[in-house]
Amino acid sequence: MGKLIVVGIGPGDWEDMTVRADRALRSCDVIVGYHVYVDLVRDRYPDKEFLTTGMTRETDRCRMALEAAREGKTVAMVCSGDSGIYGMAGLIYELRGEAAEPEVEVIPGLTAACSGGALLGAPLTHDFAVISLSDRLTPWETIERRLSAAASADLSIVLYNPASHGRPDHLRRACDILLETLPPQRLCGVARNIRRAGESAQVMPLGELRDFPADMFCTVFIGNSQTRTIGELLVTPRGYRDV
Amino acid sequence: MGKLIVVGIGPGDWEDMTVRADRALRSCDVIVGYHVYVDLVRDRYPDKEFLTTGMTRETDRCRMALEAAREGKTVAMVCSGDSGIYGMAGLIYELRGEAAEPEVEVIPGLTAACSGGALLGAPLTHDFAVISLSDRLTPWETIERRLSAAASADLSIVLYNPASHGRPDHLRRACDILLETLPPQRLCGVARNIRRAGESAQVMPLGELRDFPADMFCTVFIGNSQTRTIGELLVTPRGYRDV
Repeated sequence: MGKLIVVGIGPGDWEDMTVRADRALRSCDVIVGYHVYVDLVRDRYPDKEFLTTGMTRETDRCRMALEAAREGKTVAMVCSGDSGIYGMAGLIYELRGEAAEPEVEVIPGLTAACSGGALLGAPLTHDFAVISLSDRLTPWETIERRLSAAASADLSIVLYNPASHGRPDHLRRACDILLETLPPQRLCGVARNIRRAGESAQVMPLGELRDFPADMFCTVFIGNSQTRTIGELLVTPRGYRDV
Repeated sequence: MGKLIVVGIGPGDWEDMTVRADRALRSCDVIVGYHVYVDLVRDRYPDKEFLTTGMTRETDRCRMALEAAREGKTVAMVCSGDSGIYGMAGLIYELRGEAAEPEVEVIPGLTAACSGGALLGAPLTHDFAVISLSDRLTPWETIERRLSAAASADLSIVLYNPASHGRPDHLRRACDILLETLPPQRLCGVARNIRRAGESAQVMPLGELRDFPADMFCTVFIGNSQTRTIGELLVTPRGYRDV
């Protein structure tokens, strides 16, 4: 019996991977994942066996990884960002169920709240909520309720999956919900292609974010009532009184 | 003029640091930080100059780091977890203000939501809120309001700074707020000393969490309505329909 290691590889650049994640990818037999994420690591670990699937084939991908581990291989399943936060660790555990085998190890990675925040400045120095705008697995009403609750409690908000080909208007709809509670001047930021080719960071008010052409490579940050800009940077103060 | 690099070192073990963070600590002249965090890296980078301060001396620490960079040194300021999430990046930007110098680089690190989640299982596979229970810089009423909002919207919740010597009852008070909305059976977990000596993970219902003797080395996870245990693990399903 082999072993399955669920590896969060961070935003995409090798240097943003943890030492532990790098070691796992160097020592494994097989690398499994969504083909876009596998392509981010393929060149650095060229001697591995690679197993990939397309988008939205999460359950197939996890079954494939578990099966390869059961065959005796050391399998690394790569997730972009963290392996837990919207990652595959949960589904792997669900599919393995109460069985003790194969052994599963979960190696965390930098989620976009961390890597995108650093790109924009320091927008998450205080309490925040992380909400996905994908309604593929979650009713849109639940997403709306979470957006309203976070805004009403003055939490900063990070939006994952703000748009995709199939749902180009989700960010606009989310902004309209937020604008019921928050002023259009509320400072926001968009991190795109974090640590990949074409990286960009843009700061704008919520009223403009509404019309921003977001795509699946964007992570969106909504500031809290204290968030401000310092130069080009988006910064949420923690509230140190002697600054 | 030198450079200031704000480095998130993750939970504490070198292997959970990113390759980029390791490179920054190897290449710098001076390592600055709260003495407990500096002690986590001192042995691996023994030839550096070290500057430390005690707890709650954040502004002094940041001024010291900026000053050393202005003197021409390459300075790494270490933060446990991420450099942005409740980290020092925001305060560094505030203190530097609109000045272009010294150059500041922020290197993100694994925050406890990622590293503690991996230790407990996969509690953050769906939307969540991160809330600090420290009222040193935030009115307790604001914290209560955020807890209630997150619970009412069925967000999983991660509690940072759940207790300290000066506020031993904050976790109990937070649980009492949550219990106004959530059932006492709601599954929760506590990750303690993540990736350090004495590491532990415990899963328990919210009604028991209320009486848990948390300390400043704990990170607390409160599941959403779908969170369940699989064996010893705390898992929040994402909702894949073909599991």
